Amino acid sequence: MAWSQVAVCGPNACDEHEAAQAREVGRLLARRGAVVLCGGYGGVMAAAAAGARAAGGVAVGLLSGRDREGACQELSVVIPTGLGEARNALIVRAADAVIVIGGSWGTLSELALARRGGVPVITLGGWRVVDAAGEPVPGPVTATDPAEAVRLALASTPAGST
Amino acid sequence: MAWSQVAVCGPNACDEHEAAQAREVGRLLARRGAVVLCGGYGGVMAAAAAGARAAGGVAVGLLSGRDREGACQELSVVIPTGLGEARNALIVRAADAVIVIGGSWGTLSELALARRGGVPVITLGGWRVVDAAGEPVPGPVTATDPAEAVRLALASTPAGST
Amino acid sequence: MAWSQVAVCGPNACDEHEAAQAREVGRLLARRGAVVLCGGYGGVMAAAAAGARAAGGVAVGLLSGRDREGACQELSVVIPTGLGEARNALIVRAADAVIVIGGSWGTLSELALARRGGVPVITLGGWRVVDAAGEPVPGPVTATDPAEAVRLALASTPAGST
Amino acid sequence: MAWSQVAVCGPNACDEHEAAQAREVGRLLARRGAVVLCGGYGGVMAAAAAGARAAGGVAVGLLSGRDREGACQELSVVIPTGLGEARNALIVRAADAVIVIGGSWGTLSELALARRGGVPVITLGGWRVVDAAGEPVPGPVTATDPAEAVRLALASTPAGST
Repeated sequence: MAWSQVAVCGPNACDEHEAAQAREVGRLLARRGAVVLCGGYGGVMAAAAAGARAAGGVAVGLLSGRDREGACQELSVVIPTGLGEARNALIVRAADAVIVIGGSWGTLSELALARRGGVPVITLGGWRVVDAAGEPVPGPVTATDPAEAVRLALASTPAGST
Repeated sequence: MAWSQVAVCGPNACDEHEAAQAREVGRLLARRGAVVLCGGYGGVMAAAAAGARAAGGVAVGLLSGRDREGACQELSVVIPTGLGEARNALIVRAADAVIVIGGSWGTLSELALARRGGVPVITLGGWRVVDAAGEPVPGPVTATDPAEAVRLALASTPAGST
Repeated sequence: MAWSQVAVCGPNACDEHEAAQAREVGRLLARRGAVVLCGGYGGVMAAAAAGARAAGGVAVGLLSGRDREGACQELSVVIPTGLGEARNALIVRAADAVIVIGGSWGTLSELALARRGGVPVITLGGWRVVDAAGEPVPGPVTATDPAEAVRLALASTPAGST
Repeated sequence: MAWSQVAVCGPNACDEHEAAQAREVGRLLARRGAVVLCGGYGGVMAAAAAGARAAGGVAVGLLSGRDREGACQELSVVIPTGLGEARNALIVRAADAVIVIGGSWGTLSELALARRGGVPVITLGGWRVVDAAGEPVPGPVTATDPAEAVRLALASTPAGST
């Protein structure tokens, strides 16, 4: 518990730019000593885990499935929760901060659950939420690149704030 | 299992217009023989349950808490899941369709989890989701009033489609 | 919330005597106005639900699966939790008391989770738990027949104690 | 995913002999390269985590609570699931094998959930389960000491069987 835990959330199907961002986010988090939490499958999840492991860090995958089928190979610890998409709530609850890369309904549910629970959310692009008047709903903070996202995420966590 | 189950999702703190909409949605669902599922607390949840019960229907509250504290009084069945916000996934998973009234992060997580799982979502106003280009993300269907919302919800369910 | 909720737990594969006991327990609970909670599949679960429905009561099935596949036909409300066996914790948490009929590892997990959470457990036969010295572990109460089981269950619940 | 994951389950309140057994089990698992999973609080859980960390291993705590309050200090990764006792199902589902030390209702629920899911269970004493005739229910395997428990646990896992 001496280190921070940061969730990296994004689609299973992502483009190359998003994968590169996720890999860099994972790498920077590991270099700062943070554990990377993710959903444990492909796309943004696999890229963040790969980035963390390549930098000597720890990556934990909280799978929706009840076994390891489909899990990415770069995880240090695999937790097949068997909870289906209810596991999205676990990923963000266990995180000191959440970095969102790209858009999908699953990813958006993680963003919303994080905000519901008061967990800081940093986004690198992706979907946005607007109110009935078309104004952005306050809460998520937009970062311009992976370095800023990681800096903001760790600044918002207890370990990072000391 | 002869009847449909429709979730009514919305904020614990809602305005009078939203409460009236939720009550009418609950009433119409009950008259059509559908079970109303909700989060079991106040605001939109309590109003939908009250509408259903007043029409002789069944209202089920899936609470986030581990006991009945704070549950609204109009429920036929109370399930204190003790799962925290992970229970949002259960509400939409158990529903044939979801009607969303109003905006909050918890409500948005239910909308997103429903779409992630392929459950039809009908909205009566509330928050909207746009992509990086500012275009609405397809999926949720907007209804103009409670009657249309209920009609669309039941048309999208197996029991309603027969 | 005006009525009690009692879980009836037992194996999916049960013998005729256990099924008859479960059906009678369901019937008596419904006649006393209690909602019957169960796992929603076959064997003891289906028999308890059938007994409750035949007496005009409400039976709620909390399924481990993510859809209604395999659910028994006698349920008033079906909640496909998609949580796998973690749903066993929900069944007992939502209950004012638990009646156990027959033995299986799933059933035993419900008995243990109920006792862990302080929920009264009444058993009609089935497996027993002994400590390292071979002595029965205190907690579960044994009833001699369905009528006594229902009486003890309702006596132990808030609604039953008034 | 190159290594095995073994859950060590036991009471929060344990005696010194059980704590010593748990510490030795944790140490031996870590030396064999296995990740130790546990409930993350005190007693057997803390001792197993401490043993693993002292040997340079990885210990993961899956907490029932929604934050890190009460978590033991020896964990590499802390997952506050917020699921209450439903998290017991996650601990055993994520494990290739379960080692049980001591008896409590929570511990017994983990043993039962593991057997329900087909996960091998090795016990070092503790509570036992007997059928209606007083005969031991087959399933859990008894080990005489921590070394045998670890050997049996790893022999039963995919990674250990190669």
